[in-house]
Amino acid sequence: MVMKVYGTVLSTPVMRVLTALYEKDLEFEFVPVDMRAGEHKKEHFLALNPFGQIPAFEDGDLKLFESRAITQYIAHVYADKGTPLVCEGKKMAPAGVWMEVEAHQFDPVASKLQMELVYKPKFGMATDAAVVEENELKLAKVLDVYEARLSQSKYMGGDCFTLVDLHHLPALTNLMGTPVKKLFDARPKVSAWAANIMARPAWAKVLAMKNQQ
Amino acid sequence: MVMKVYGTVLSTPVMRVLTALYEKDLEFEFVPVDMRAGEHKKEHFLALNPFGQIPAFEDGDLKLFESRAITQYIAHVYADKGTPLVCEGKKMAPAGVWMEVEAHQFDPVASKLQMELVYKPKFGMATDAAVVEENELKLAKVLDVYEARLSQSKYMGGDCFTLVDLHHLPALTNLMGTPVKKLFDARPKVSAWAANIMARPAWAKVLAMKNQQ
Repeated sequence: MVMKVYGTVLSTPVMRVLTALYEKDLEFEFVPVDMRAGEHKKEHFLALNPFGQIPAFEDGDLKLFESRAITQYIAHVYADKGTPLVCEGKKMAPAGVWMEVEAHQFDPVASKLQMELVYKPKFGMATDAAVVEENELKLAKVLDVYEARLSQSKYMGGDCFTLVDLHHLPALTNLMGTPVKKLFDARPKVSAWAANIMARPAWAKVLAMKNQQ
Repeated sequence: MVMKVYGTVLSTPVMRVLTALYEKDLEFEFVPVDMRAGEHKKEHFLALNPFGQIPAFEDGDLKLFESRAITQYIAHVYADKGTPLVCEGKKMAPAGVWMEVEAHQFDPVASKLQMELVYKPKFGMATDAAVVEENELKLAKVLDVYEARLSQSKYMGGDCFTLVDLHHLPALTNLMGTPVKKLFDARPKVSAWAANIMARPAWAKVLAMKNQQ
């Protein structure tokens, strides 16, 4: 039975899961969820994710949710397919740290900036300049730490591309289309890393899916 | 060389790491960080954690930060010591989901409630009743999902005690000393689970450290 991803390709967490599947060259079925009709709060979807959020994921009998748990599952269970997205053993410990950093330092700030600079303009809502300014300052501090990290290793998790980098891709690409791009451009290592991971063929496939919407 | 944990035992993320070390019966040195003197923002500490947050952790040459990355490291690298805190292979996938749930659904809400009901009163600051009410509603929804989950398995991650349960302990215990306790008491499975994991000897050792402060 083919794996199934439930969601909408406009969602950054859904894009994380799709990227992992493309990196692994795995077949899957994408099942659109009609968020406007509130389909994610209905019983059949709540059986997949009791929190009523996307993505949800099925591999045979196994039902999973939370994007970073799904990508970890894909990386570990399909370790022998496509791109190795994890390093084994003790080497994975630093990658584990930076995986948490993406989730707790980068993503909350990036989410607020995307709301103000990507989603609000799209829906004709006014951007809150104070929120942008506050979160640009926070992002600059995070990217200073990234610049130092990327002076020690080519990728955020170590010397090869891993889930740590992959998890950044959706928000990173969104922010690159906004004035926040200047914060990345001002940091040579961060900027080279961003260009490098955004050029991955798996990511191009996800963007192509998004553009077909 | 003995492992080192840097921080203060009043911090819930630090308590997570200490609990994992006690569950594993590992020797370690606890290095207090003087937060009031701003020690966590000074150069020698920033070399351990560039974000200037506690805990930081050393095991020989390896320096780690982010509490959940440290507990994962301890669980995997010292797999053969003390309590097994992870299940291997495909079985770990559901635990991975609930690990993310703790981090993204439970902890943000629990943190806001602890701020209002534990830390603010301690420092003579007024509790914001509206924030409490809003987050009690959010927590109730999370605990409804937990009640259903715990009807399927004895622990949150599966049939044995894992990091998923462990990561909840500090915030859970704090909230049990506040009026929020009623939300746990109202749900029989959640309430039995909470009593069970709070009774673990490793957790008693952490509380004893805290009480010596």
